[in-house]
Amino acid sequence: MKIAIAQINLTVGNIQKNQQLILENIKKAQALSVDLIVFPELTVCGYLPEDLLYHQQFIDDCVASTKFIAERCDDICVVIGLPRNHPNEPEKLYNSAAFIQDGKIKMVYDKHQLPNYLVFDEHRYFTKGSHAGILEVEIKQESFKFAVNICEDIWNDAEIVVQQAQKNVDWMINISASPYSSGKIGARIRMLQKRCRDNNANLVYCNMYGGQDELAFDGTSVIIDNTGELLAQCKTFGEELLIHDTTKQSRQIFPRLDRLTEIYQALNLSTKDYFHKNGFNKAIICLSGGIDSALTAAIAVDALGSENITGLLLPSKYSSDHSIDDAKELADKLGIKTHTIEIEPFHAGFEKTLAPLMDNYFQNMTDENIQARIRGVIAMSFANNQNAILLTTGNKSEIAVGYSTLYGDMAGGFAIIKDLFKQQVYELCEYRNTISQVIPENTIKKPPSAELRPDQKDSDSLPDYEDLDDILKAYIHDFKDAEQIAAKGHDLDLVRKILKMVDRNEYKRQQSAPGPRVTKMAFGKDRRMPITNGYPNNY
Amino acid sequence: MKIAIAQINLTVGNIQKNQQLILENIKKAQALSVDLIVFPELTVCGYLPEDLLYHQQFIDDCVASTKFIAERCDDICVVIGLPRNHPNEPEKLYNSAAFIQDGKIKMVYDKHQLPNYLVFDEHRYFTKGSHAGILEVEIKQESFKFAVNICEDIWNDAEIVVQQAQKNVDWMINISASPYSSGKIGARIRMLQKRCRDNNANLVYCNMYGGQDELAFDGTSVIIDNTGELLAQCKTFGEELLIHDTTKQSRQIFPRLDRLTEIYQALNLSTKDYFHKNGFNKAIICLSGGIDSALTAAIAVDALGSENITGLLLPSKYSSDHSIDDAKELADKLGIKTHTIEIEPFHAGFEKTLAPLMDNYFQNMTDENIQARIRGVIAMSFANNQNAILLTTGNKSEIAVGYSTLYGDMAGGFAIIKDLFKQQVYELCEYRNTISQVIPENTIKKPPSAELRPDQKDSDSLPDYEDLDDILKAYIHDFKDAEQIAAKGHDLDLVRKILKMVDRNEYKRQQSAPGPRVTKMAFGKDRRMPITNGYPNNY
Repeated sequence: MKIAIAQINLTVGNIQKNQQLILENIKKAQALSVDLIVFPELTVCGYLPEDLLYHQQFIDDCVASTKFIAERCDDICVVIGLPRNHPNEPEKLYNSAAFIQDGKIKMVYDKHQLPNYLVFDEHRYFTKGSHAGILEVEIKQESFKFAVNICEDIWNDAEIVVQQAQKNVDWMINISASPYSSGKIGARIRMLQKRCRDNNANLVYCNMYGGQDELAFDGTSVIIDNTGELLAQCKTFGEELLIHDTTKQSRQIFPRLDRLTEIYQALNLSTKDYFHKNGFNKAIICLSGGIDSALTAAIAVDALGSENITGLLLPSKYSSDHSIDDAKELADKLGIKTHTIEIEPFHAGFEKTLAPLMDNYFQNMTDENIQARIRGVIAMSFANNQNAILLTTGNKSEIAVGYSTLYGDMAGGFAIIKDLFKQQVYELCEYRNTISQVIPENTIKKPPSAELRPDQKDSDSLPDYEDLDDILKAYIHDFKDAEQIAAKGHDLDLVRKILKMVDRNEYKRQQSAPGPRVTKMAFGKDRRMPITNGYPNNY
Repeated sequence: MKIAIAQINLTVGNIQKNQQLILENIKKAQALSVDLIVFPELTVCGYLPEDLLYHQQFIDDCVASTKFIAERCDDICVVIGLPRNHPNEPEKLYNSAAFIQDGKIKMVYDKHQLPNYLVFDEHRYFTKGSHAGILEVEIKQESFKFAVNICEDIWNDAEIVVQQAQKNVDWMINISASPYSSGKIGARIRMLQKRCRDNNANLVYCNMYGGQDELAFDGTSVIIDNTGELLAQCKTFGEELLIHDTTKQSRQIFPRLDRLTEIYQALNLSTKDYFHKNGFNKAIICLSGGIDSALTAAIAVDALGSENITGLLLPSKYSSDHSIDDAKELADKLGIKTHTIEIEPFHAGFEKTLAPLMDNYFQNMTDENIQARIRGVIAMSFANNQNAILLTTGNKSEIAVGYSTLYGDMAGGFAIIKDLFKQQVYELCEYRNTISQVIPENTIKKPPSAELRPDQKDSDSLPDYEDLDDILKAYIHDFKDAEQIAAKGHDLDLVRKILKMVDRNEYKRQQSAPGPRVTKMAFGKDRRMPITNGYPNNY
């Protein structure tokens, strides 16, 4: 049997465009005499369509598209994902997989295990299926028994997969939309190998590829035999139509990427797809000479092309010469055009008008925030003018503790590094420089500073990033409380101060730009915290 | 039997403060020889605690608080809500109700029906309970059979309530956190009356009161007999310890509020609680002379006190004299202090610097947005300086179609009227003026304008608000598609244009301020749409 995995980049909601892409891949497979082609979860509409699923016309369009595709599937078996209503109980919606053979839908399987944690809300939309998902099919005069299941079904030794295995199936087919997070790909493949061994079945696993808002789908689809051996592996972060002939010994295994390459490519893909799928090509970015804007700019250039990036140098009166030099060096190396605009004249104007109206203009954050917000006004004016998206440059450590100005440096439509802790920002800069040296050495070496006061350093108001990141990870990723974190070797008062900053700045995060998720717990759909929150009381 | 309903205002996460409030109410009830006191759902932690529920320490603290309270419940039965783990399977979490008698927890019932739609995500956190919830209790030498259930359990004739009814219970006790939306209170009470009749049981129904981020809980707790007759009804939008003696004929029925009063009080409560529960007293608001800022200011004054409000008049060179006069008249009538700052000097400065760097500075929205964003900078500087929250003034119609500037007029920490369509804004202004005439007549009568271009009117770029609101309601509240909406008597091209605006501006809404939900479908947790969204393709 000749099997194809169509690891394609779909667009949520764009049923027309997805249909075209699906048919192109089927045509290519037909031309190569493929017997079975497998597509990712919810193929016709992309994943996650979210509340589009509440629109009946949307569901009807998805079903119509699936039928349209089915009619064009001569001489091939196709497994494709779609949302569909229960035939007799239209208020029930399923996350389904259609098995098509020779132009006819032979079986529709409905997902059993509906994830409703982290970024997933599938109980919001779908009813649990009851179909067994087993189908016997004649291919080239040979009979094959297939078990179809969908994404979460195959995780955690779920009941449906065990039931299917008891039927002695030859092949499991799993269609997935399993989003990337660092460390997940290896774990996912090991899980799939174990499932094949446990159930004594071969597996075709097709995972989605592409960026959708905050999620990056890495693909890395696989074919695994019933001993757990990897027979084929698609690209990680790439589109691919992989063909595997089960009668031949040949293997195509896309090599595993190392940790930093993986993360970098996730950020690159997310950025490219967020821009292009939303109809944008151009980006604006404020270059401070610091590490965050440097990494953001490098990724933006790699994702969108240097000709589409405009760098803005917006020095304040507290900006050091080396900051401006570092920013210019970065822009030169990246080959992006820049404008330099001093913000002091604007700042002086606001100060002159506002300071007399206020009692303590210089005693709190008022003056610092005005500077950050003047930059926001200027940067957004370029974005509006060029029909570009302003890239905001905050990292996860800053965003966690609220070390940023709403509508100032937080202004922007996409936040490429929002899920990277500060230490990872350094790691990725060094990684990027191994490809080509674009980020100035001085940017990497100098101590971080917001430069909104004379001689300001991040370390004036924050602990070392090594400590900060460790505390934040324990709190945000691992749900540890203050005492547990202090037991790792941190000062309890410091830990409490940091956790309080995290909690108190939830309001800022809820107004922040989207950006790629690369950890198992990003700020966004993963972590849903109340703004109004009196817990705990012992700060 | 003497029954008390403790319709109290809890704070999410503030277990210590909630515990104190609970104990105070129990003490009052004990002093009045109450036999049974009933509290709302998740009493000890407030509703919705969201991902706080993932923190084991938080759950442990809730359970400890419940035990602490139980030990102080001499001579009284208490029903109180808490999250708790399964005793033997600690990975399972329940939304529970403890029935306490004479200092001991006699029964813990776990919620069966877990809502996972609109703003609710209970499948994310909780496991479905299996306990029957039935308990026989001796009160004053008389035996009573109680059935305890929780919020959603009693809606939709759910299985658990029917099972309970078959046990011939005397009293159902339902503890709830049922958020307000316009039209819901009457429907809720009718549903409860039907449930009492159908199940031939009396009911004590305690609903939460208070604001939590975007949700307003109206209270309106009730006692209903087994014929469906209302014996007692607590305040709508008020704290109350209601005492009802079942041996007496007396009734206390808080009268139903009319539609506009209800909405106004929901907005008032949400505003007050968002500010106070987050530790803020003061608000900044930009007064344009228009209807939206006028209503926002009136509600802010009613919720927070005029002494805590600062109005900013920030006229542009396109602002008409009457706008400034109207804003001043409003401020005078509301008794709030104002500052007037012309934005043209700042605008001229930005224009002078930026226009030469751009090809088409005046051809797109660049110049208009700069003006809105200068206002954002000024208003936020006052907010930062006074430790105040800037109130943003957009209404639902504008927010739907993106008729607003990110980081400009959208800047702010709370958006009081974000869930009111423009026509409702007018209605509520007129309603507010019936209490005392604070909103200038001219503000209500003149055609709406953003005044960012000479002689600009909203109707230049938008249809009449009557049409716009009707189209938006059909799309957002009722999930109608373009053809269905056009069939109501609207031009199909116009409808498509509007729906496209709604879809294309999702990115703005995802960076917008929270604000009170008063409809069944607010922008926020109710409506989760992808930003990257290719549907439909026929715009």
